[in-house]
Amino acid sequence: MSVVHRLTLGDVLSEHRRGRPLGTAVVDGPVRLTYPELDERVDRLAGALAGDGVRAGERVLWLGQNSFRVLELLLACGRLGAVFCPANWRQSADELAHVLDDLAPAVVVWDESEAVEKARGAHETRGQVSLDARWVKSGDEYESYVSAAQPAPVTATEVDAEAPVLALYTAAFDGRPNAALLSHSALIAHSMALLHIRQMEDGFTFLACGPLFHVGTMMFTLATFQIGGKLVFTPAYEPVEVCRLIEAERCTQAFLFGPMIDGLVEANKDRAYDLSSLRFVAHSPEWDEMITVDDSPWCASTMGGYGQTEVGGMLTFLGLGMGGAGFAGRSSPLVHVRLLDADGEEVPAGEVGEICARGQSVFSGYWNRPELNAARAAGGWHHTGDLGRREPDGTLTFIGPRLRMIKSANENIYPAEVERALKSHPAVADAAVIGVPDDRFGQSPKAIVVLAEGAEATAEQIVEHVRGEIASYKKPRDVEFAGSIPKKGYIPDYDALDEQYGGGAYPGS
Amino acid sequence: MSVVHRLTLGDVLSEHRRGRPLGTAVVDGPVRLTYPELDERVDRLAGALAGDGVRAGERVLWLGQNSFRVLELLLACGRLGAVFCPANWRQSADELAHVLDDLAPAVVVWDESEAVEKARGAHETRGQVSLDARWVKSGDEYESYVSAAQPAPVTATEVDAEAPVLALYTAAFDGRPNAALLSHSALIAHSMALLHIRQMEDGFTFLACGPLFHVGTMMFTLATFQIGGKLVFTPAYEPVEVCRLIEAERCTQAFLFGPMIDGLVEANKDRAYDLSSLRFVAHSPEWDEMITVDDSPWCASTMGGYGQTEVGGMLTFLGLGMGGAGFAGRSSPLVHVRLLDADGEEVPAGEVGEICARGQSVFSGYWNRPELNAARAAGGWHHTGDLGRREPDGTLTFIGPRLRMIKSANENIYPAEVERALKSHPAVADAAVIGVPDDRFGQSPKAIVVLAEGAEATAEQIVEHVRGEIASYKKPRDVEFAGSIPKKGYIPDYDALDEQYGGGAYPGS
Repeated sequence: MSVVHRLTLGDVLSEHRRGRPLGTAVVDGPVRLTYPELDERVDRLAGALAGDGVRAGERVLWLGQNSFRVLELLLACGRLGAVFCPANWRQSADELAHVLDDLAPAVVVWDESEAVEKARGAHETRGQVSLDARWVKSGDEYESYVSAAQPAPVTATEVDAEAPVLALYTAAFDGRPNAALLSHSALIAHSMALLHIRQMEDGFTFLACGPLFHVGTMMFTLATFQIGGKLVFTPAYEPVEVCRLIEAERCTQAFLFGPMIDGLVEANKDRAYDLSSLRFVAHSPEWDEMITVDDSPWCASTMGGYGQTEVGGMLTFLGLGMGGAGFAGRSSPLVHVRLLDADGEEVPAGEVGEICARGQSVFSGYWNRPELNAARAAGGWHHTGDLGRREPDGTLTFIGPRLRMIKSANENIYPAEVERALKSHPAVADAAVIGVPDDRFGQSPKAIVVLAEGAEATAEQIVEHVRGEIASYKKPRDVEFAGSIPKKGYIPDYDALDEQYGGGAYPGS
Repeated sequence: MSVVHRLTLGDVLSEHRRGRPLGTAVVDGPVRLTYPELDERVDRLAGALAGDGVRAGERVLWLGQNSFRVLELLLACGRLGAVFCPANWRQSADELAHVLDDLAPAVVVWDESEAVEKARGAHETRGQVSLDARWVKSGDEYESYVSAAQPAPVTATEVDAEAPVLALYTAAFDGRPNAALLSHSALIAHSMALLHIRQMEDGFTFLACGPLFHVGTMMFTLATFQIGGKLVFTPAYEPVEVCRLIEAERCTQAFLFGPMIDGLVEANKDRAYDLSSLRFVAHSPEWDEMITVDDSPWCASTMGGYGQTEVGGMLTFLGLGMGGAGFAGRSSPLVHVRLLDADGEEVPAGEVGEICARGQSVFSGYWNRPELNAARAAGGWHHTGDLGRREPDGTLTFIGPRLRMIKSANENIYPAEVERALKSHPAVADAAVIGVPDDRFGQSPKAIVVLAEGAEATAEQIVEHVRGEIASYKKPRDVEFAGSIPKKGYIPDYDALDEQYGGGAYPGS
């Protein structure tokens, strides 16, 4: 045993047990646990999971809404070197059935819900094996499961900090979702960066009112745990209950964004709740009066920076590029960020490239996806699938998803960059760019443009505008006007566009 | 090459080169370097050092006052996997000669000073080999050395982040000083904790006006580097120059403590300098008016917590134990702290034990001291040599140096703990405790007490007081009054006390 030691999540808990014997670790409805109480439950839960065959590398799945059990299952899996996955309970039965197939968990802890019932049905119909998993229902059955168990043996604490401990399924624009695996080291490194930029100090209390299957809620949950703060769980966002909890637990922060904030302002319009403990980004005059407006660098924007699940949450922070030209700020202190071209070479400042990352908070790959992992880790850089540009002051601008590349002569053209330039024309409401066959260049970009209501512009005017924004070879050779752009989520549905407007055959993708 | 990657100091610099192309990295007299300029100098310097045989594991020594060259030598050694040591230029010629012997550096960069000249003389007299090192004089000779070199080859950047890169000689109460080796990973982990607790944000500017051979100045220098801030170097503390630099460079922080602050207040008594950029701990009404009083958790005390060179600086932070009973606060987020007895077992809360540490910012051992390293890393815990106690709320109290242990019957008694109890008696101005032979118990504690001027107390009263403070078996069996306690630095000179008062034969030490 060496004095130089990389901490695991279990190590952090064992430290809090000593350092915060009276500190509240979790609050969830009637449940309140101090750090020593949480530690004892986690030990017992690890013993129960071990009894069901969960050992290093095995998976445990949570199918349910937010609960303090998500945290204790994560920590118990951490003690065993196993991987914990909180599944998206909002998914369809089919999608959940796919997660069951893909992850093949040894233990499933589940909440009663229609989707879970349907998922079990869909799964049984397919005759898959993972229903052989031990299914434990959250609530009394789970409590008996924990209390009947012997604590895990002490040797279970010798876990490799580089081993994956958390699996989060990422949004899939195309095909199946993939489970990003994050190690103890990666999660702790990310927490350190977040603690710093968000000024999460001693006594921090976080209200997990966003979904814990999403990295945005999970990353704040983990940073609060790292600093020994108090975690308040609520099953899902419900405005009055969120207001009540902020007042009752004196929450410092919560997972909230625009429409959720509007809901709180409405729910608290008679000022029944004291929300002044909440340090949060300014939003509206009513909101700003209810809370304490946060001036930490994190709150320099509503997004905080650029990130994705595969980097543990945030890769860059706007707060590290205050006053800079790029609104994604600068890289988190424990990572490298490079903008690479299709050949893996770094592009110069001012040019668009794929945002690539290496470092301590980067993920360990996707569960069960060897080919995808090899592709996304090409050259030792994690390829985020997103495009960015480094500004002359070194700050970063997020351009859009890479998705596909148009190869015109020998030049690479990313639709997102051209779309950004198109949308900066005042008459353009929306735009998408596809690649169409071109006799001379092999392929050339074609724009589908939706004009703003009442606005007018010719194709020539729009192309001229784009030429002033980006390199000339990237300008559309053809512009077609349309009433709307078909979408998949927030992203243009490129397959539909190709079919409708004659695109296809992308040699660079 | 894996996407999961632990950063080296060189990696951090290469990131700043991209992210802060216009940012000032260092200011030192007429020298101003941006991050790209610093990166280029470091590359060239690494090439020069490599040309003089500096490769992985080799040492480079700095003998001189503060300079930006300390940072660039550290970074250049980091590029090569080598170890950089800034020596204490205040040491005597004999001590410096010892450092030369001990470290056997391949390259020495030196400043003209009496001590360095004498050290070379003392060294030559002994006929030691390390004068065969390449000696480069700081100033023009150094500049030629750098500018004549080819940049180090790119392959040199593949350095193990766990390799030591910095050696700092620690104060030796007993015998020779020892060089604590700190790895890239340890320094970066420590910086992350310091950035957080000290709220060192984007745009941070640090004035290194304390000695860079001391971890107190070095740790802030490194954290400022980690966040891409501006480092201002001045050869040594000179009050008017420090005031001038704070105003001219808008310094956010400087290495200052009590008497140094008094010097600035005096130097700026006519308010000639605007020191308002400085965010610092409150000190006196005059000072507080000149600066911006810092309310970050770091400034909850003048010390910030408990630390030592061997843990990279700070092991605990008072700011993580706000309002707690223990004056040393709680452990830094990336370390474990345990209070262990002489057998390596954890002592319960309320009992005094040796402060021991494991974690990411702990050192890699001392240079060239295998036996001492084995002893101090017993059981996988770094033994700090200091005593502490965990309070019921989990916070830590620093008691004093361990130094030696009295074994009375089977009980272990640390002099520092008994001295603390003695000094809490209002009539006691100073006290020291030694172990004297005891027919019944083998050894028993004896107190040497200095009464406060004009105060009176009997031996019985003092012993009774101690009995109320700590376990009865720890109370002195004998009290002797004296006019003063002989000291070595701040610490009682126990050897002299043993000789004078009949102590000795410590079975537990």
